[in-house]
Amino acid sequence: MKVKLMLLTLLLPTMLGAQIVYHDAAQFPLLGKATDATAGRYDRLPDSLETKARKQLVDLGHNSAGMAIRFRSNSTTIKAKWEVLNKFGMGHMTNIGVRGVDLYCMDEGKWYFAGSGFPGGKESEALLIKDMPARDREFMLYLPLYDGTVKVAIGVDSLATISGPQVNHPVQERPLVFYGTSILQGGCANRPGMAHTNILSRWLGRECINLGFSGNARLDYEVAEVIASVKDASVIVLDFLPNVTIEQLKERFFPFYKIIRQACPDTPILLVENPPFPNGRFNAEIQEHLTTENGIYKEYFKQLKKEGDKNVYYFSNEGMIGDDGEATVDGSHFTDLGFMRYAEKLYPVLKKLVKE
Amino acid sequence: MKVKLMLLTLLLPTMLGAQIVYHDAAQFPLLGKATDATAGRYDRLPDSLETKARKQLVDLGHNSAGMAIRFRSNSTTIKAKWEVLNKFGMGHMTNIGVRGVDLYCMDEGKWYFAGSGFPGGKESEALLIKDMPARDREFMLYLPLYDGTVKVAIGVDSLATISGPQVNHPVQERPLVFYGTSILQGGCANRPGMAHTNILSRWLGRECINLGFSGNARLDYEVAEVIASVKDASVIVLDFLPNVTIEQLKERFFPFYKIIRQACPDTPILLVENPPFPNGRFNAEIQEHLTTENGIYKEYFKQLKKEGDKNVYYFSNEGMIGDDGEATVDGSHFTDLGFMRYAEKLYPVLKKLVKE
Repeated sequence: MKVKLMLLTLLLPTMLGAQIVYHDAAQFPLLGKATDATAGRYDRLPDSLETKARKQLVDLGHNSAGMAIRFRSNSTTIKAKWEVLNKFGMGHMTNIGVRGVDLYCMDEGKWYFAGSGFPGGKESEALLIKDMPARDREFMLYLPLYDGTVKVAIGVDSLATISGPQVNHPVQERPLVFYGTSILQGGCANRPGMAHTNILSRWLGRECINLGFSGNARLDYEVAEVIASVKDASVIVLDFLPNVTIEQLKERFFPFYKIIRQACPDTPILLVENPPFPNGRFNAEIQEHLTTENGIYKEYFKQLKKEGDKNVYYFSNEGMIGDDGEATVDGSHFTDLGFMRYAEKLYPVLKKLVKE
Repeated sequence: MKVKLMLLTLLLPTMLGAQIVYHDAAQFPLLGKATDATAGRYDRLPDSLETKARKQLVDLGHNSAGMAIRFRSNSTTIKAKWEVLNKFGMGHMTNIGVRGVDLYCMDEGKWYFAGSGFPGGKESEALLIKDMPARDREFMLYLPLYDGTVKVAIGVDSLATISGPQVNHPVQERPLVFYGTSILQGGCANRPGMAHTNILSRWLGRECINLGFSGNARLDYEVAEVIASVKDASVIVLDFLPNVTIEQLKERFFPFYKIIRQACPDTPILLVENPPFPNGRFNAEIQEHLTTENGIYKEYFKQLKKEGDKNVYYFSNEGMIGDDGEATVDGSHFTDLGFMRYAEKLYPVLKKLVKE
């Protein structure tokens, strides 16, 4: 009898792996949303902006950048089926980063990459990890960065359990809210988990909300209202500079800032400079523009301090992505190397601000 | 008169930029070839293997992985036109990495990224950098990693000069020769310059020859002959382990090694372990295979030492790509983060071996 039981235990992983059953991810917690008043579950901007905001912004609001599904399972295999809105693609970013999924698993209290899902067409199915010894584990599934997510299902062994998480990490309280450009949206991370808001959420153990809008972080006041509506934000990061002209910065920065500051009088707000774009080493015009614009932003920071704002902070671009010029794919968009370096620089600053 | 001359000097960059003239890259030095006996200029394997070697190997031999064109120009703008063989694409690698080009420029004796070229179809044209102050500069243009290069032309301002390099860096003497898998071939660097042989060639100031064959580093003796034919190699790196079964390793390693060793009795040969693939943390079968295979390879190294080989070295996978599990796109193929970490680990070892 004892031998039989041992045999059964040894065979369990194989038996569990025999068939995969899919579960709609809509039943599990979703991280990374500023508001629930959205048309689809995996949208980032409120439905009310659909006819009010600029079309480009509305379209990008349907991208699921920075979102992740949390669940728990004892399956030996994890698969995913997902449907995207546009089947979008870009020459300087992997399809996995643009419209794929990315699975992390908790091990001894830390999140580790477990497997990424290659997208097919609008509908995809992928094996994320297999041959795991059968025991309960916490999982986090990151969603596409540059496409919309219509629906997601998680596949586990037919005899395995799957449920919401039992470990509250990253916590969905006092989230960090990031506003920014294509870089913030995750351009050009190799897989969704490597956008820096996703790296930082794992490291800080706290939800990060990604309001990155590729080419469209133009200080739209509607977005300021969305940021302001996240009442319990622990930190707000304003990282939009590469998308605004100097004229737009001069015209819109203070009104944009004041919408947020009035709603969140005590929340730390971190102003982030333009990155030190590597092609600025040779392209004299880029370098001059960066220096001028960063100079104006720094002056605005000083002005806010002078006016008595005690919760505004400034993040200089010094060493932001290293000094070797290797951190981008095209001179401006970060690779995983760039995102890792940026996260390493931001982490100690944000950790301190979250606590204050 | 003086004012007029000053005006002319100030206007020069703008005037030079007025029109672009293309120059066939075939007239400039090419780095990264083990042999010149190839069918096309940008092929890696000798034409004589076309009917002799396995078809997959022959096809991959047409990929221009690890090759770079060296030139000098005082142009304010650099453009490129290039034609690829297959218009290949992969879900886990950028099109720029697969079939794009990547320009580096020397600044105070060091190579820095200047701009990457997004590919179109089989024929592409891209602006790599503009608005440079007009003065003589050394350039290096990296070619596609996972496609064949049929031809390349470099575009400069119509009034600018273009010629072969005046600075001999990386030197084309005593090259390092690397034999390996898809990872070695550059999978999945975001742009060609970030394959680790290209990073190392910049850092070591010495030509590196990339004999990476995606999925096909199966210890083919024909490839051993090609490696052995590079008579003045400074170091030979054998980094093929992820592509062989344990049976293939047992059957072919010593004959393969001996072909090289007999031709190059004093050349340092570095044996590289399987990388610590991140999904091995959860996938028990992967982890077990890696440990077993690395163990056998280490035994072979000890055996070679015991037999009196004084120029064989072993590279352990400890910390090869960091310990955070973040360095790959899919659990096995390196991102720029992985390649940078791997290059940082390999660099001091290779630097020492090159000197010996």
